[in-house]
Amino acid sequence: MRGVDPAWLPDEAFRPIGTRRTLIRGSGPLVDTVHAEVAQACARFGGRVERDTGPGATAYDLLLDLNGDADRLGDEGYTYARREGRTTVSARGQAGLLYGLFHVVRLGERAFHGERQVERHRPAAALRMLDHWDNVAVHPVMGQVERGYAGGSLFWADGRARGELLGRVRAYGRLLAACGINAVAVNNVNVHETEAELLTDRIGEVAAIADALRPYGIRVHLSVTFAAPMVLGGLSTADPLDEYVRGWWAEATSRVYEVIPDFGGYVVKADSEGQPGPFAYGRSHADGANMLAAALEPYGGTVHWRAFVYDHRQDWRDRTTDRARAAYDHFVPLDGQFAPNAVLQVKHGPMDFQVREPVSPLIGAMPGTRLAVEVQATQEYTGQQRHVCWLGPMWSKVLRFRPAGGPEGPSVGELARGGLVAVSNVGDDPFWTGHPLAQANLYTFGRLAWQPDANPYRLLGEWIRLTFTPEKTGESARLEAGVYAVLAGSWQTYEKYTAPLGVGWMVQPGHHYGPSVDGYEYSPWGTYHFADRDGIGVDRSVATGTGYAGQYAKAWAEVFESPETCPDELLLFFHHVSYGHVLRSGKTVIQHIYDTHFEGVAEVAEAQEVWASLAGLVDPARHARVTERFEEQLRSAREWRDQINSYFSRKSGVADAHGRRIY
Amino acid sequence: MRGVDPAWLPDEAFRPIGTRRTLIRGSGPLVDTVHAEVAQACARFGGRVERDTGPGATAYDLLLDLNGDADRLGDEGYTYARREGRTTVSARGQAGLLYGLFHVVRLGERAFHGERQVERHRPAAALRMLDHWDNVAVHPVMGQVERGYAGGSLFWADGRARGELLGRVRAYGRLLAACGINAVAVNNVNVHETEAELLTDRIGEVAAIADALRPYGIRVHLSVTFAAPMVLGGLSTADPLDEYVRGWWAEATSRVYEVIPDFGGYVVKADSEGQPGPFAYGRSHADGANMLAAALEPYGGTVHWRAFVYDHRQDWRDRTTDRARAAYDHFVPLDGQFAPNAVLQVKHGPMDFQVREPVSPLIGAMPGTRLAVEVQATQEYTGQQRHVCWLGPMWSKVLRFRPAGGPEGPSVGELARGGLVAVSNVGDDPFWTGHPLAQANLYTFGRLAWQPDANPYRLLGEWIRLTFTPEKTGESARLEAGVYAVLAGSWQTYEKYTAPLGVGWMVQPGHHYGPSVDGYEYSPWGTYHFADRDGIGVDRSVATGTGYAGQYAKAWAEVFESPETCPDELLLFFHHVSYGHVLRSGKTVIQHIYDTHFEGVAEVAEAQEVWASLAGLVDPARHARVTERFEEQLRSAREWRDQINSYFSRKSGVADAHGRRIY
Repeated sequence: MRGVDPAWLPDEAFRPIGTRRTLIRGSGPLVDTVHAEVAQACARFGGRVERDTGPGATAYDLLLDLNGDADRLGDEGYTYARREGRTTVSARGQAGLLYGLFHVVRLGERAFHGERQVERHRPAAALRMLDHWDNVAVHPVMGQVERGYAGGSLFWADGRARGELLGRVRAYGRLLAACGINAVAVNNVNVHETEAELLTDRIGEVAAIADALRPYGIRVHLSVTFAAPMVLGGLSTADPLDEYVRGWWAEATSRVYEVIPDFGGYVVKADSEGQPGPFAYGRSHADGANMLAAALEPYGGTVHWRAFVYDHRQDWRDRTTDRARAAYDHFVPLDGQFAPNAVLQVKHGPMDFQVREPVSPLIGAMPGTRLAVEVQATQEYTGQQRHVCWLGPMWSKVLRFRPAGGPEGPSVGELARGGLVAVSNVGDDPFWTGHPLAQANLYTFGRLAWQPDANPYRLLGEWIRLTFTPEKTGESARLEAGVYAVLAGSWQTYEKYTAPLGVGWMVQPGHHYGPSVDGYEYSPWGTYHFADRDGIGVDRSVATGTGYAGQYAKAWAEVFESPETCPDELLLFFHHVSYGHVLRSGKTVIQHIYDTHFEGVAEVAEAQEVWASLAGLVDPARHARVTERFEEQLRSAREWRDQINSYFSRKSGVADAHGRRIY
Repeated sequence: MRGVDPAWLPDEAFRPIGTRRTLIRGSGPLVDTVHAEVAQACARFGGRVERDTGPGATAYDLLLDLNGDADRLGDEGYTYARREGRTTVSARGQAGLLYGLFHVVRLGERAFHGERQVERHRPAAALRMLDHWDNVAVHPVMGQVERGYAGGSLFWADGRARGELLGRVRAYGRLLAACGINAVAVNNVNVHETEAELLTDRIGEVAAIADALRPYGIRVHLSVTFAAPMVLGGLSTADPLDEYVRGWWAEATSRVYEVIPDFGGYVVKADSEGQPGPFAYGRSHADGANMLAAALEPYGGTVHWRAFVYDHRQDWRDRTTDRARAAYDHFVPLDGQFAPNAVLQVKHGPMDFQVREPVSPLIGAMPGTRLAVEVQATQEYTGQQRHVCWLGPMWSKVLRFRPAGGPEGPSVGELARGGLVAVSNVGDDPFWTGHPLAQANLYTFGRLAWQPDANPYRLLGEWIRLTFTPEKTGESARLEAGVYAVLAGSWQTYEKYTAPLGVGWMVQPGHHYGPSVDGYEYSPWGTYHFADRDGIGVDRSVATGTGYAGQYAKAWAEVFESPETCPDELLLFFHHVSYGHVLRSGKTVIQHIYDTHFEGVAEVAEAQEVWASLAGLVDPARHARVTERFEEQLRSAREWRDQINSYFSRKSGVADAHGRRIY
């Protein structure tokens, strides 16, 4: 689209296909999408595309074959092979053919050289979803997109769905399909008054968005308020066991499916941070979720019930309450009680998308429940898309984690039978994500959702080659290596200059940007570091702490229980230790804090220089935007460094071993 | 007015006059106001009032005598005497007669008994002003009234002046006159886009407010933006030496006086916290102020130019910059350069209305400049009208301070030749000030502005007797003593449970309510305590600190220079000392912190009990409102106590000598 960054689908990415001869077999709306993609590429680059409606087809280089006899890879899987100078993608479902096409796009010229045995591709998770925390009416505090750092909403403008501008939504769907995403929730999980009406009176607007996304195999989901029967239906209760309430939901849901036959389902944040829920009626979360599951079941819909339930009015003086325990304590007793089409959506860590958290102990502890794992692409706590922070390695680490301990048990990626979900980082910004390099997070998420055990660094390379088309420049190796150098270690860099050793928070309250070491220390949010003049950290051991470590399976519980075995990067999450405590790295905690904070800033400065050196190789507007953001990142990283180091120097009284400037 | 608290003018306060015979001599609009007041009281209580238009007047108990031969007490002064069973108020000006009437109201029955030699009353300052920080258009962050804690604006609603509701404004004027205030600035000193237009296109709305206040001798002033010639006039500059700019202001001002002949003048916040000012053109503040003074001069108007100029984008790492020095450093070099009708309006302390600050060294240091001293009735940093905090003793201490040192030099009250100004604490709340007891601040300010050396505790008694009319109850002594007990020490109580020993701040950033010890510690606002594990405080000495102490005249500079002579309550404002430093009180700093914080909470609980015991003696709605606020005050005071004590316990490692619970 004019004026909008092409992200990982620049025209150039279609050159290998567009210069060749393609034959497409099969029919249907998504096959039409496939055909349109290839036809557009051929129009640009001189190739040819035909649709085969019978025998006697012409010669071709690429066959895209919708084929009922294809391998049993489900609706979304495909096979890929190259033999005798011909590349073939076969799929049983139309979506599979579309994903196969994008596989060829990713391969580029390599798709048309050499031989390749049949490869089978299918997504690990049936649901690969983005949750948009978009408000229809601009919220007075949270703005249009809650925790959004990329402008306004893609879906909503001026208080309604973007009418004629849904072309942008379609372009978005195309980008998502190209990285494997197949579901989008179009509104904020905090459902305010205006947004509540999307379920009923304003479902037509949701249908318009669904229409724009459908050609790319993407279904829409809707965040709904648990209080809808009261707010919208005028009932006097929202009790999930009340017959009238159940009837109201059944009726409302049937009307949704009248206008959106492939509607994905509901997303619900209930009894969480002030949102209404079943607790008000003495019912369980399973009661609440199952009521909605029952309403959706006749149509094949799913309810995603968020497990982000904790006491957000905690007293900081009370050290017996531990927010980290909350999701496990609330939900594990309900295992086995959720309906088959109810999915419990669990944040990947026990707190809230900090730069470093352990994996939530809930994952793996509810074998009788379909879980979805939620990550956050929008960088609420990781630089808010003013800082480069590529989250691929963090997510990969989570997805590869084996909750049972040892190499045999299933990984988080395998346990997420209900899907993988990311909070979207996209808005109506011309670069989609504000910071152009934050596109890498969206792309990596989609690709990891498809294949959770993929090497994230390989996916980063994919994204760089698609987005920057380095072969167009005379210096493809330098460009590719440069962008890679800027991104690959950026999460670790961000961690270095922010909250240390897994302790989390230390951000400005409210907007969560920039440092405030004590910003959440005396708050009701359950987010503490307990630093005093002698030491820091939260004792979550079983022996002397909150017992959180005991929520893990034995192997991990033992690792986390002792400061001697706990990984350094999570030490302060699990233990309160003295500043002189020697880490497994051999450094003391206090010297680690000083060192990492000086290092982090130095690494930002280095990355900034690398980026500057790429001027001329990168689209000027994109280069300029990143350059501008790097200035802020460096300023902010220094602020983090100096505040954190000063805070701990003043508190501990320990001098930096290297005598560097601490204020 | 119906539904609005009568504050210190309940009907009952007029009983002594209303039951008697009054004769009024003289004519004019304010004499009409006086007559209407007395007539209304007589209608209620059966007395009689006559206007004397010649010889042969009837018998009377009270004579209100507008008399050109009266003592030379100016337009606002009056004499008061009682002889031979008759009470007489004489005044040369109508306003004086009005103030004399309210003097009689304050005296109550005492005005009609015994004999009294002639007393002369006149205000110490010609200008006794309230600045309303009211926005016309509700500001997205600051709301309608910036730092307002009493509902919306009295003057503005729905984006314009309150049309038919100006009756409330008139009632407000009556309350103000009854405590001696004679000027009101009707809009926020931060002048936003909408409010800028009040000066020109929307001056009619200001005129309507002026009309409502005029019968009580109150003139209106307007906050204007220095950029008005550009914003409103379309000029390309606002340079105060530019002829077109000067012409624009002259023209605009003449139009203002066409519709408001007694317009008071302009209030300007320039080059401060982002507001535009003369610095942009390389001009001085005197240049800026004098330009406006020139425009106002032909009509007798005054410009109030605020001295609140400092670097609000300071780097916390830079310890050489001291915000406390800023006003003095900026303005003292300009002494003698300001026009006679330009008043430099100085905050009473060098920072920003903290619970304890030294007196601004600017006051007394500019003998060639008319200064107005500004205090803050709205409790931005003193409990936001959810806490009882009667500021009378603080203001009194400021006004009695003698900058030259020693008993001979003039006091601050005497030096404030340009007037005394308070930021208003009033809104459209039925109790005017949100917390009903915050009315005492407004009343006390007005009375102190009239007589800066008055004993504030006597004024508090006045306010209690007027407002609670204890003689109506059967237990007047208990009621009066109870309210007195709740209020008299409330400022000291508030100080005890908040920031200690003059160090200030420690509030939540932004809204400024509730504790956050480090909330402003690493900020750009120049507001630091520099606490580390060994000690706390800001070294502002000449010998080793920022040199701020040297801005005072020698006698005070010497007192503040040394921790040995510096008053305890300002110790941490002037010095960085160890936690073990022994105060003049004999306690260590750390033990002082613990003790005062426990005491402060205990005092709030005591006051709450006293208030509870007054149920039945106080109007039920008023009693209920205060009761509700006390719950929040106690909760908040505990939060302050625990956060502050925990913070310093964790940092210092020093145990409480009394072993009380610190978290």
